[in-house]
Amino acid sequence: MISSPHEYSLSELIKAFGGEIEGDPNVRVRKVGTLENAGDNAITFLSSARFLAQLLHTKASAVILSDAYRNATPLSRIVCDNPYAYFAKVSALLNPPLPAVAGVHPSAVVSANALMGARVSVGPNAVIGDSAQIGDGAVVGAQCCIGDRAIVGSETRLHSGVTIYHDCHVGDRCILHSGVVIGADGFGIAPEAGRWVKVPQVGRVIVGDDVEIGANTTIDRGAIDDTIIEDGVKLDNLIQIAHNVHIGAHTAIAACTGIAGSVRIGRRCRIAGAVGIAGHLSIADDVEISAKTLVTKTISEPGTYSGGYPFEANSTWRRNAAQIRHLDALVKKVKQLEKRIADMERKPS
Amino acid sequence: MISSPHEYSLSELIKAFGGEIEGDPNVRVRKVGTLENAGDNAITFLSSARFLAQLLHTKASAVILSDAYRNATPLSRIVCDNPYAYFAKVSALLNPPLPAVAGVHPSAVVSANALMGARVSVGPNAVIGDSAQIGDGAVVGAQCCIGDRAIVGSETRLHSGVTIYHDCHVGDRCILHSGVVIGADGFGIAPEAGRWVKVPQVGRVIVGDDVEIGANTTIDRGAIDDTIIEDGVKLDNLIQIAHNVHIGAHTAIAACTGIAGSVRIGRRCRIAGAVGIAGHLSIADDVEISAKTLVTKTISEPGTYSGGYPFEANSTWRRNAAQIRHLDALVKKVKQLEKRIADMERKPS
Amino acid sequence: MISSPHEYSLSELIKAFGGEIEGDPNVRVRKVGTLENAGDNAITFLSSARFLAQLLHTKASAVILSDAYRNATPLSRIVCDNPYAYFAKVSALLNPPLPAVAGVHPSAVVSANALMGARVSVGPNAVIGDSAQIGDGAVVGAQCCIGDRAIVGSETRLHSGVTIYHDCHVGDRCILHSGVVIGADGFGIAPEAGRWVKVPQVGRVIVGDDVEIGANTTIDRGAIDDTIIEDGVKLDNLIQIAHNVHIGAHTAIAACTGIAGSVRIGRRCRIAGAVGIAGHLSIADDVEISAKTLVTKTISEPGTYSGGYPFEANSTWRRNAAQIRHLDALVKKVKQLEKRIADMERKPS
Repeated sequence: MISSPHEYSLSELIKAFGGEIEGDPNVRVRKVGTLENAGDNAITFLSSARFLAQLLHTKASAVILSDAYRNATPLSRIVCDNPYAYFAKVSALLNPPLPAVAGVHPSAVVSANALMGARVSVGPNAVIGDSAQIGDGAVVGAQCCIGDRAIVGSETRLHSGVTIYHDCHVGDRCILHSGVVIGADGFGIAPEAGRWVKVPQVGRVIVGDDVEIGANTTIDRGAIDDTIIEDGVKLDNLIQIAHNVHIGAHTAIAACTGIAGSVRIGRRCRIAGAVGIAGHLSIADDVEISAKTLVTKTISEPGTYSGGYPFEANSTWRRNAAQIRHLDALVKKVKQLEKRIADMERKPS
Repeated sequence: MISSPHEYSLSELIKAFGGEIEGDPNVRVRKVGTLENAGDNAITFLSSARFLAQLLHTKASAVILSDAYRNATPLSRIVCDNPYAYFAKVSALLNPPLPAVAGVHPSAVVSANALMGARVSVGPNAVIGDSAQIGDGAVVGAQCCIGDRAIVGSETRLHSGVTIYHDCHVGDRCILHSGVVIGADGFGIAPEAGRWVKVPQVGRVIVGDDVEIGANTTIDRGAIDDTIIEDGVKLDNLIQIAHNVHIGAHTAIAACTGIAGSVRIGRRCRIAGAVGIAGHLSIADDVEISAKTLVTKTISEPGTYSGGYPFEANSTWRRNAAQIRHLDALVKKVKQLEKRIADMERKPS
Repeated sequence: MISSPHEYSLSELIKAFGGEIEGDPNVRVRKVGTLENAGDNAITFLSSARFLAQLLHTKASAVILSDAYRNATPLSRIVCDNPYAYFAKVSALLNPPLPAVAGVHPSAVVSANALMGARVSVGPNAVIGDSAQIGDGAVVGAQCCIGDRAIVGSETRLHSGVTIYHDCHVGDRCILHSGVVIGADGFGIAPEAGRWVKVPQVGRVIVGDDVEIGANTTIDRGAIDDTIIEDGVKLDNLIQIAHNVHIGAHTAIAACTGIAGSVRIGRRCRIAGAVGIAGHLSIADDVEISAKTLVTKTISEPGTYSGGYPFEANSTWRRNAAQIRHLDALVKKVKQLEKRIADMERKPS
C-alpha cells in the first residue's frame, strides 16, 4: 500500500461524514488497511459478519462498522449506516488523486484551435485534435489521443493512453483508464453477394458525468444515432459496448461483458462479469444479471437473472453434459413411461 | 449525428447504385437517419417488417426499401433488392472518410530506411521501424507503432494507437481501429519440471485486403508458420485470434470471441459474440455460430451451431441448474423405471 | 517465417541441451519448421502420435522426438524426454530476441530523477515517470508509459505501448506485450442511495520474475493490499485480473479469461480460455480448468474442472436447451412416476 501524508482524528472524520464514535475520538489515522493487514494508524472497516473472526485479530487503530456490530470490538470505532461507503469516503480523504501538473507538456501535440480550459494538464506525447474542447481542470494523460471536435468535461481524468475518436463527448468528473477506446466504428456491415459492405458509423458516443471506465474497455460510436452512457455509470475493464447501446444512469457493469448493438439498459442495473446481451434487447431498471449469463430476451421486470452452467469435476461434468444432448429424448421417454403407467393403472387388476 | 456537406438527389443516387424511384426523383438528401430520428433532408431505410410501424411515423425525406414494401409509405423512396447494402453505399457517399493530411507529422519517428508510398499520412508521435513499408495513400494514425519490416498496404487506414509487430503484413484498403495489436507472441509455452519454457514465436501475421479489425482486438503471430487472415474478413472489438489461426475470406466475427491456436475457419462464416473455438479445430465454409457457444469439435457441414445456456429468473435457474448436476443419475433412474414398468407389463394380470 | 542467421549441427545442439542423436550428427540446422512446412536446414519436432503421418512426409533436415518414436523416421534426429521443451530451447537459440538499441531515444520523455540501469533501451515516445526504476538491460518499447515510482526489473522487455501505473512493480526477465495495462484502478464502488461512491484503489500490482503477459491484458491494482502475480506466471491476451487477486507461481492462463476480485489461485494451475472465476474464491495448486467454465465455488483439490455447455446443431440445441427450463419439473414428474410404479408393484396382482 502506498503511504499517505494526510492524518485525521476520528472526531474530524465524523464531522466530515457523520456517524458516531465508540471509544477514543482522538485516535488518529493516516492510512486505510484491510482487517487482516492493517497496522498502526490505519483505519479499516467491517462490511459483513463473514469477517468477524478477522475483526478479533485486526491490528488496525480504528474500525468503521454498522450498528449491528457496535460492540464487536474493543477498538475505537465509527458506527454508521453504510460502512463500505463511509470507508470509501475516508479513503478518498486519506488518498487524494495523484496531483497532475497543470499545463501542456512540450512533447504534446495540441491543435492550435483546440479549446483548452483553465488548469488543464496535458501529459507527454498526448495528441489533441482540431476544435477539441478540454474542460477546466481536466487531466489528459500521457499518450492520450483526443480526436477532432471531441469534448472532455471538467475535472475529468484520462489516464495515459486513452483514445477518444472525433466528435465524441465525455462528461465532467469522469475517470477513463488506460487503453480505453471511445468512438471506434461500430460493427456495421451489410452482406451483399458473399462480401460485406461497410456501413459508415456516423453517430457519436456521448458519455455523461461521473462515469468511470476501466482499462481497455471499448465503446463504439453509433451507426446513425449516438451511443449513450448516462451519468454515474461504472464500467470495469475489457468491456465491449456496441453501437447505439444506451446505458441508464448509475448502472455498473463488471469486466469482460459484451453488450451487442442497440441494447437499451435501464438505470441502477448491476451486471456481473462476462455477461453477454444480444442485440436490440431492453433491460428494465434495477435488474441484476449474474456472471456469464447470455441474455437472449428482453427483461421487463426488476430482479436477478442467471444463466451460468454449473461447473463440476471434469468426470462428473462429462457424464452430465453428455446427457444434455439427449434431454429432449429423455423428456419424450418419460412421457411414454407416464402413459404406460397410466395404462396399467387403468387396467383392472 | 455528424453533419455532412454532401447532397444528392434520388435520381443521382439511382444513377450511382441502381434501383428504382417511387415518388419525386428530385428529392435531395444530405444525411442519413434512422426511421425514428431522421429529419429533413435525411434518407433512411427499412430493413425488416419489424420496423413498419416506425416507417409510418418517420420524418425522413426519403426511404430505401425492398419491393415487398414498395407501397408501404407515401414518402419518396428507392426500391432495391438489398436495402441495407444500398443504404451503406449511400451513407458512404454522404459520409466520406475523414480527410487525413498527407505527409509525416514532425513529431512522428520514421526510420530513414522505411519505404513510404505516395500520399501517405503519418500522424503525431507515430513510430515506423526499419525497412517498414507503407503503401500509397495509407493513413498511419497518431501514436501507431509499425515494427521493423512490417508492411501496411495501400489506402489502408490505421486509427490512432494501432500496433503492428515486426515482419507482419496488412493488406490494402484495410481499417484497423485503435488499440489493435497485430503480431504479439502467441501463447507458446512448453512445460518442463513444473515451469514453462517459452517457445519463440517466429511466424508472422498476414492480413489480406479489405479487412476491418475492431478496437483492442489482438491477432498473435504464428509460432512457426504464419497466422493468416484472408481478404474481406471483418473482426469486431476485443477479439482474440491465437497463433496459426487461418480465417477464410469474408468471414465476420463479433466482439469478445476467442479463437484458440491453429484453428482453421472457412469462408463466409458468421461467428457471433463471445464464442470460443478450441484449438486445432476446423470450421467449414458458411458456418454460423451463435453467441457464447463453445466449439469443442470440428464442424464439417455448413449450418448454424449453438451452445448458449438458457437464462432465466435466478430462482428458476437455480432449481434447474441444480438438477443438471444430477442429470446422469436421472437418466439412470428413468432406465430403471422403464425396466420396472416392462416387468409389470410382462406380468400376467 | 522469419529467417535466422544462426546455424548449428545436431552434435552442437546435444552438447547444449542433452539428448541423443540417431543418424548424422553433422546435419546442420538454421531454422525451425513445422512437420508440414519445414524445408532444407530446418529442424522440427514430433509432439504426439497424432502427427506421425506428417512425420512421414516432412521435408525437414532433422527432427526432435521422444524415445517412443526413435525409429519412426529415417531423418537425422534428436531423441529426448521432452521434445516440445527441447524444441523451444533450440528455437530460442536459432531465434534470439530482436536486438534493442541501448540508450534512450531522443523523443522519449524520461524524468530526470528516474533511476536508469545499465544497457537500458528506451524506445521512441516512451514516457518514464518520477522516481521510476528501470533495471539493467531492460527494454522499454516505443510509446510505453511507466508511472511514477514504478519498477521494471532487469532484462525485462516491454513491447511498445505497455502501461504501468504508478508504484507498480514488474520483476526480472518478464515479457509484457503491447497494450498491457498494469495497475489501473480495481472496480471498487460502494452503493449509497442509488449511486456509487468510488473506493480509492491504493494497493499496487506486484509482478514476479519470468512472467509473460499477453497483448491487451489488464491487471488491476489492489484496493488496499496488493495484487500479486508470482514468478513464472504466463498470461495470454485479453485477460482481466481484478484487484487483490493472487496468482501462484508457474500458473498459466489462456486468453479471454476473467478473474474477479480477491481470488487466490494456486501454483502450477492451468486455466483455459474464457474461464470466469467469481470473487473471493480459492483455487488449489495444480488445478486445471476447462475453457469457458464459470467457477462459483472454491476448489480445494487438484484435478480438472469443467463447465462448458455442449454445443450442437442449432435445431438440436434448441430442443434440448428448451427442456433445461423444465428440468426441475421433469425431476418431480419422475419422482411421481416412481411412486406410482412402487404403488403398483406393491399391489397384489
